This record gives sequence, structure tokens and C-alpha cells, in this order.
Amino acid sequence: MTKGKTFIISGPSGVGKSTVLRELFRDREDLYFSISATTRQPREGEVDGVHYHFIDVDRFRQMIQEDAFLEYAEYVGNFYGTPKRFVDEAMEQGKDVILDIELQGAIQVTSKRPEVVRIFIAPPSWEALEKRLVGRGTDSADKIQKRLVRAKVELQNANTYDYFVINDTVEQAVREINAIMLAEHCKPSDRMDILN
Amino acid sequence: MTKGKTFIISGPSGVGKSTVLRELFRDREDLYFSISATTRQPREGEVDGVHYHFIDVDRFRQMIQEDAFLEYAEYVGNFYGTPKRFVDEAMEQGKDVILDIELQGAIQVTSKRPEVVRIFIAPPSWEALEKRLVGRGTDSADKIQKRLVRAKVELQNANTYDYFVINDTVEQAVREINAIMLAEHCKPSDRMDILN
Repeated sequence: MTKGKTFIISGPSGVGKSTVLRELFRDREDLYFSISATTRQPREGEVDGVHYHFIDVDRFRQMIQEDAFLEYAEYVGNFYGTPKRFVDEAMEQGKDVILDIELQGAIQVTSKRPEVVRIFIAPPSWEALEKRLVGRGTDSADKIQKRLVRAKVELQNANTYDYFVINDTVEQAVREINAIMLAEHCKPSDRMDILN
Repeated sequence: MTKGKTFIISGPSGVGKSTVLRELFRDREDLYFSISATTRQPREGEVDGVHYHFIDVDRFRQMIQEDAFLEYAEYVGNFYGTPKRFVDEAMEQGKDVILDIELQGAIQVTSKRPEVVRIFIAPPSWEALEKRLVGRGTDSADKIQKRLVRAKVELQNANTYDYFVINDTVEQAVREINAIMLAEHCKPSDRMDILN
């Protein structure tokens, strides 16, 4: 059995990443979505092991000591991190793993595992991203401007990613991510052993 | 319009490359198959500009002087080469270009154009390749052994290729080549300009 690979999928707020990921995972038993560990309290309806692995601060600090995270960060007083264990188990089972993380996390993962493939989801244009953020109706004009500025910064760093998927239509974005995953399994390092 | 890219497809004799290429080109107006120039005489049924560009030795030598080939070689007294012009015209029209050439040609093309993507088609196993060569019924046992030895040498150099497609089934091989071509169009260098 071929071992799975890990793929990071990043993208600015409002680019439609959640919709793309939902479509990507439809009917795909062979894909594993990495669930983060966090020290924050579960919210109403959140299930341990489904939305997050909820752990306490002592355990989180111990895991940092044990180098048990692929990446972690502190955000408004809580820790969030990607446990290595579940990622490695899924890959051993031949499953490809998707990490839904942002640029800083991607940098941390890459320093530990340079072989991880990084995909950046971008909007077809700035106008499209702005329209989408306005259309959601959840953010104030001020907040939308802040998100756009942050998206520009993220995009300036996106050339450090291996691939660049434009979310023009969800179908095309999913098709491209699937193509990238299949192509990455055609790298000689994966296949040279087949003819020994 | 996005510019096309050039893909080299190589593979040992008997691996089923022609069948894979035929399927790949089915209903694909957006793909251009590079036609070689040669100084050898047309055989019965061969059409200029379809099977080869038939040119004389003086013209071929002049084209070498003008650096008009991506690669060329002499084989049993005749020259064979890949003219740059048609490749470049197709790419300008947004078409991806397929070069059906072997390792030595791939090395020449890569030295001129490092951005060219190289795909090696391999058999699922040595047994499968041998069985296929025997099954064709066109070669003597001695010739089959020579082809197998040559295939082993080619394969030892295949790790210099970017991708490694196993021709287990034609459908899967074509699916993988299509995925590679789409994935290569998702490289950041192709797409960073979209958001300027």
C-alpha cells in the first residue's frame, strides 16, 4: 500500500475555503481532515474529537515539550495546535491528510516536514473577494477593509506555496486540488521502488 | 489567456506509450502533439506535416546552425529533431504541447528549457513489460532481451524526470497525465499575476 501524503490548504478569509473543503471531502473515505487540539472551552454543540480535540493547558504544554505538534499557536489566550499522531496514523493507513491552516502554521509545518505540499486558495480577483466579504453580511465595513489588507499580505507570501488554486468556481477548485494530490503521488520518490 | 506548457513524455519500448498518447489526445483540441522534422525519405502512406516534417539535409544543418531545434539526433544516417517554431506557436495559442521523445532528447530540451515538465511512463513490473514485448510477436527473443536491458538503463535515469506514471491501465495512466498537466498550471509562477 502506498503511504499517504500531507497537504496544507490555506487561503484568506472570505475566499470560500470551507465550501471547497466540504466538496473535496464528499465521498472521499481515503482523505483525512486533521482535527486541531485546543485549550479553549467547547462551545455549544461542539464535540470532542470532531470539531476539536479539547485538552487542558498542562497537557498542551506537555505535548509542546514532547514535540507532539506539527505546528501550534496561541490566540486570544488559548492554544491551538496540529497533533502529529493522527496525521501520521492516517498516512500510515494510506490516507492523504488535509491541514486547514494559515501561513504561520504552514511555515512551522514546512520547517519540520519539507515534503508537505502547500496549496494556497486565492480569489479570482480583489473585487470578487471584497464582494464576497460584503455579501456574507457578517462584517462591518471597517472589518472588511482589515480582512482585505490581511488577504493582500497573505497573498504576497503565497508564492512560497507549491500550488495556487483560484476559487472561481468550487467545481474547478476541487478539480485542481484533486489533480494536485494525484500528481504529487506521481513523483519519482513515491514510485521508484515499484520496479525493484 | 494562459500560455501553454511543454510536457515531455518518455518511456521504454513496449510500455504502451502510443496507446496512452492516443487516448490522451482523444477530444483534446487544446493539446498539441509536436511533429518531428527528419531527413529520411517518407515511407508509403506517410504525409508531410502529419507524420513528420520531411526536409533535406542542407535545411536540417541550417536549422541546427540557427538553433531552431529543441533537440535533435542522428540515427542510422538520418537526422531527427524537434523544431522550436511549432512548439512555441502552439504555446502562444494557449495549447499545452506534448513531446514524445527519449532520455537523450529530454536532456537536450531540459538544458535549453529547464521549465519543461518531464513525465516517464513505466510498466507496472518487469514481468509485465517482458510479457508485453513477447505478446506483440514482432521481436525475436534476443531482441526482447536487448529491449529489456535498455529499459532498465532508461529506468535508472528516470528519477531525473519530474513525474513517473505507471501504465497499469491506460485509463489510470491518462488520468494521471491529465492531473499532472492541470497541477502544473497551478504553480504560483503561472498565477501570481492574476491578482495584480
